[in-house]
Amino acid sequence: MSERFERGLRKLKEIDGEQGDRVVAALQDIALDFATYIVEFPFGDIYCRPGLDLKTREIATVAALTAMGTAPAQLKVHIHGALNVGCTQQEVIEIIMQMAVYAGFPAALNGLAAAKEVFADHKGRRKSTPES
Amino acid sequence: MSERFERGLRKLKEIDGEQGDRVVAALQDIALDFATYIVEFPFGDIYCRPGLDLKTREIATVAALTAMGTAPAQLKVHIHGALNVGCTQQEVIEIIMQMAVYAGFPAALNGLAAAKEVFADHKGRRKSTPES
Amino acid sequence: MSERFERGLRKLKEIDGEQGDRVVAALQDIALDFATYIVEFPFGDIYCRPGLDLKTREIATVAALTAMGTAPAQLKVHIHGALNVGCTQQEVIEIIMQMAVYAGFPAALNGLAAAKEVFADHKGRRKSTPES
Amino acid sequence: MSERFERGLRKLKEIDGEQGDRVVAALQDIALDFATYIVEFPFGDIYCRPGLDLKTREIATVAALTAMGTAPAQLKVHIHGALNVGCTQQEVIEIIMQMAVYAGFPAALNGLAAAKEVFADHKGRRKSTPES
Amino acid sequence: MSERFERGLRKLKEIDGEQGDRVVAALQDIALDFATYIVEFPFGDIYCRPGLDLKTREIATVAALTAMGTAPAQLKVHIHGALNVGCTQQEVIEIIMQMAVYAGFPAALNGLAAAKEVFADHKGRRKSTPES
Amino acid sequence: MSERFERGLRKLKEIDGEQGDRVVAALQDIALDFATYIVEFPFGDIYCRPGLDLKTREIATVAALTAMGTAPAQLKVHIHGALNVGCTQQEVIEIIMQMAVYAGFPAALNGLAAAKEVFADHKGRRKSTPES
Repeated sequence: MSERFERGLRKLKEIDGEQGDRVVAALQDIALDFATYIVEFPFGDIYCRPGLDLKTREIATVAALTAMGTAPAQLKVHIHGALNVGCTQQEVIEIIMQMAVYAGFPAALNGLAAAKEVFADHKGRRKSTPES
Repeated sequence: MSERFERGLRKLKEIDGEQGDRVVAALQDIALDFATYIVEFPFGDIYCRPGLDLKTREIATVAALTAMGTAPAQLKVHIHGALNVGCTQQEVIEIIMQMAVYAGFPAALNGLAAAKEVFADHKGRRKSTPES
Repeated sequence: MSERFERGLRKLKEIDGEQGDRVVAALQDIALDFATYIVEFPFGDIYCRPGLDLKTREIATVAALTAMGTAPAQLKVHIHGALNVGCTQQEVIEIIMQMAVYAGFPAALNGLAAAKEVFADHKGRRKSTPES
Repeated sequence: MSERFERGLRKLKEIDGEQGDRVVAALQDIALDFATYIVEFPFGDIYCRPGLDLKTREIATVAALTAMGTAPAQLKVHIHGALNVGCTQQEVIEIIMQMAVYAGFPAALNGLAAAKEVFADHKGRRKSTPES
Repeated sequence: MSERFERGLRKLKEIDGEQGDRVVAALQDIALDFATYIVEFPFGDIYCRPGLDLKTREIATVAALTAMGTAPAQLKVHIHGALNVGCTQQEVIEIIMQMAVYAGFPAALNGLAAAKEVFADHKGRRKSTPES
Repeated sequence: MSERFERGLRKLKEIDGEQGDRVVAALQDIALDFATYIVEFPFGDIYCRPGLDLKTREIATVAALTAMGTAPAQLKVHIHGALNVGCTQQEVIEIIMQMAVYAGFPAALNGLAAAKEVFADHKGRRKSTPES
């Protein structure tokens, strides 16, 4: 396991928590090497770079995936990641609404629907955590 | 002139400076009403919202336009806008490089080429300004 | 409630009937302001403009959403809207088939599948209406 | 030369006039068969179908190409074609502006710029025609 | 039934087996003519051309549909087709992984998920075949 | 200079010849690290993988970039690369024509125009080489 891979895995966990593990696990039996690449390049190289904090990086990713509209599953992973690294729900909503200007209202509507699902899931998980 | 239009025009100037004027002027003889809409909805409604500062909004827009790859002229306007509202050149570069992960290397390469042009233009203009 | 909002709401109901209400309702608990924008700009501004009848406007929208292929839910809403404002099923089919030329056969196939669902739903609703 | 090809060629001339010839001519030395296909399928099959008049078909195409944003040259050919088969300049503007709702403001801005060029070209050609 | 249609139908069966029949059958009650076009142009014209073997053609199609990301159902049909005409599962995986470079990691991830489903289906069908 | 970078640089030269150098050189003064990434991941990781020969890899890339339509400069680089690693001009034409089926006729037309430019450039360079 290279230093780059280990660094990427730590960054992936920092951003996505357990969801990051699931993305990697889903690749195990179809394309093991791709799991390595996804840890190494996006997370080990790009997200580890200085010059932009993780919150800003996740905002950029949520904006791009909302605008593209071709990767709804990954958009949800990154809305979750954005909340994880310090974005508020309202900030996520603001970014997605803004995409109506650049990619049209349907792209923003689909982004908002994705956010609604992720927010509900977050709320559910918080409730089921034993308060101690 | 509605309050919404005036508010949008102020915001557009704050973000894009003289380039905003040019976008609106280019529409005068083809679609005057569209110039109104573009001032009112994106700038009077969206960019005037609280909850996200202008720098973050421009980062989201640069990310989205780089990823989409279908609006190179508008990408340049918004790279210029990002610098105008406080992004550093290095931050713009970071956002664009990150888009390689989500939209592929060609999208990022084309974004970097756009940034290079805008940066050169900024440098040229700063040099030609009489220092006093 | 602004005049622009009221005008947009009337236009939305004229085009989409109860489905328009549902689009707006789905936004209530996630992004209330976005429900306002969607009524105001697309419906209060654009669809209220003279110079193009509603049938032609819906044809343009069905064409665009079929070609883009990134908003299947909104495509169905607008196929429904197209029928509502006077398009025949055959006209909808013609527009979607034509998109094979500009966006490829898969885009047209997915558009036809969407149309099939909307048409079946229309038929079902007509049958369940008491004939009097 | 098949009946389908001849029918397509007549339809192409009806829609695009001399510009249609240029599209076909440009293919002669690179992909002769593709010139045949483009005459046969889009023009001989699709545009010859009953059930939708040519004006409506060109409106659908202008909408789709504006929204997609990846084929600016073909968008201009079809704006020209739309005018040729009876659309007014204002109708073309209306369709393109409407695309801001579905594909974002940059897509509409680029569509309007394309229209401006085509309209100027039309005006120029009308002026240079000897009035008799 | 034209010679072109018959030739296309044979090619479609050669590539997609029974799945090709299902694509055509699904169109029967919504757009019968489109079933004809899809057999004639893509399969009767394009896939019957000399100069590129079927395996290479399917590789090109899997690459394009993975990169576009707007037609997941058709991507699965063509992954199935690629296997049918001689691609190995590993070759399909290689093509899809490569698309991360040109269309981003989410496009490749979605392509790999599609491949996983098609491969599982192939395995299941092989198992249920009586060995004799 | 890592082993991965050196391996990538050799692969890049093998595919693109001097054009690969130009892609990297253009990044020197704007995003040096991105030049490193582009050598390392696409060329050092992906194109160095066994399981698919370079010719097939370039065919997949030409197909994808033609279908996407958002990166005309990179499409030309890869048409050039495809010829470099053993594709014939006719094979390149076949792949691009096939994209009309999946991404529409305008995408294929723009791909053919790109091919025409690259082929002319190749012819010119061959002529100017002293025959000895």
